[in-house]
Amino acid sequence: MGLTDRIDAAVTTALTRAAPRGRSGAPEQLSHALHYACTPGGARIRPTILLSVAMACGDDRPAISDAAAAALELIHCASLVHDDLPCFDDAALRRGKPSVHRAFSEPLAVLTGDSLIILAFETLARAAVQDPVRAVELIEVLARQTGMPGGICAGQGWESEATIDLSAYHHSKTGALFVAATQMGALSAGQEPEPWFDLGALIGEAFQVADDLRDACETEAQMGKPAGQDAAHGRPNAVAELGLAGAVARLNDILSGAIASIPSCPGEAALAQMVRAQADRLIPVGAQA
Amino acid sequence: MGLTDRIDAAVTTALTRAAPRGRSGAPEQLSHALHYACTPGGARIRPTILLSVAMACGDDRPAISDAAAAALELIHCASLVHDDLPCFDDAALRRGKPSVHRAFSEPLAVLTGDSLIILAFETLARAAVQDPVRAVELIEVLARQTGMPGGICAGQGWESEATIDLSAYHHSKTGALFVAATQMGALSAGQEPEPWFDLGALIGEAFQVADDLRDACETEAQMGKPAGQDAAHGRPNAVAELGLAGAVARLNDILSGAIASIPSCPGEAALAQMVRAQADRLIPVGAQA
Repeated sequence: MGLTDRIDAAVTTALTRAAPRGRSGAPEQLSHALHYACTPGGARIRPTILLSVAMACGDDRPAISDAAAAALELIHCASLVHDDLPCFDDAALRRGKPSVHRAFSEPLAVLTGDSLIILAFETLARAAVQDPVRAVELIEVLARQTGMPGGICAGQGWESEATIDLSAYHHSKTGALFVAATQMGALSAGQEPEPWFDLGALIGEAFQVADDLRDACETEAQMGKPAGQDAAHGRPNAVAELGLAGAVARLNDILSGAIASIPSCPGEAALAQMVRAQADRLIPVGAQA
Repeated sequence: MGLTDRIDAAVTTALTRAAPRGRSGAPEQLSHALHYACTPGGARIRPTILLSVAMACGDDRPAISDAAAAALELIHCASLVHDDLPCFDDAALRRGKPSVHRAFSEPLAVLTGDSLIILAFETLARAAVQDPVRAVELIEVLARQTGMPGGICAGQGWESEATIDLSAYHHSKTGALFVAATQMGALSAGQEPEPWFDLGALIGEAFQVADDLRDACETEAQMGKPAGQDAAHGRPNAVAELGLAGAVARLNDILSGAIASIPSCPGEAALAQMVRAQADRLIPVGAQA
């Protein structure tokens, strides 16, 4: 099974537990909204990195790695649903279809995000039969990179401050779930998470620059969501700061640093290749050399 | 230390980890909002029940019981913050002060709820150093009673359905966190959770009837939140259905059943007394015999 199939299967298994199709006793629209928010998936970049790191480290408990990949993707989907709400980005489109609050309703979008967050932790707790110590470590890392004071909630929270700590903002808003990806991948395979921090943080930085490039270069149809949002909302953007060529050079520098940071492990070479391949997918055609 | 002090200390310890006072590197308003949403506390009924059950079962790992009590209260506070949002009840007041979205903003209220949910699971994961097996069991029970398909998110989700399964609705909307309270209390002390289901479910039913009584009898000033909301929103209410005396009689019947359901344990008598005392606090003065 390829990585994408493995991730999709793990996400579907988790979703089916929370929102069983055609079962009575659960509210139907919310059940439907949970599936709608997570499938069909986007690029599944975070769980792909997670599984790639787990495999580079031996992946000796694949059921735990699968649960970790699903949990991370569920949190990411939850964050997209809440970020799209009218009180944040008020986005009409996500992944080329109406955002959850447009397709269902605002109350159901709030509940979808909440339910997906909870399901992420439940999925890891259920994987504990395999190894309770690894499961609680995974829960702790995921919570740290998701909540306060340094996770993606903190990242969104910075947008309500009069003075933004830009480094803390970028690290928590975009970097946190990439740090979760690399650290959870290592933990799933029984390795220490700390040496994997830099790889996640640097991929997060690269992703931020790539996102800035896409926001500046692509159309709404190409992105599946509105383009030009950074300029419209006055948000910092690497292209505005460095120009197009400068931003691409910056992205390549960060990637080289990311690859150099990979800790010594059995699957180091394959992992470096995966990081490069994911990055190539992120650079918009108009910005490639 | 009394139960209330013990709960307040546990909640404050958890909050201080997520939202350290006066520390830079975290968004200040969101940090402030987390504390605002949880302190000063309301009646802390759910964690009081949790700790009472743990103590009735021997409370052999008080640090785990404290973490469980804090986690349950954090989830309850998160649910109040999200339920008060404009797209749900649009409540201006909560516990006698402005609701979180009125005091801060709607984006910060969404993020406060999200952060508190995550913090609940993080708090349990951190307690795992004491006993990882108990910690993951606690996480699983809390997630089941909070998310989909049968937790409080499901309860809110029923309000978006054209046809409501009333039994599933009440059980998930109000009963779920009381089931979590009794089952997590037992689990914290190393006991099986299943025998404690009925006690939680029946306390939940009693609480629902008491809430209906308060909504019908009390003023906004007494409740610290708007009164008469059930009638205003066309929601089912035991007083409308059974009359005032009928609803009080119903409440007493449910409580007797709850007390009779308490599994045999060392602290059975004290626990029965606590359940009766909590219930007495809930019955509004105007409805007492």
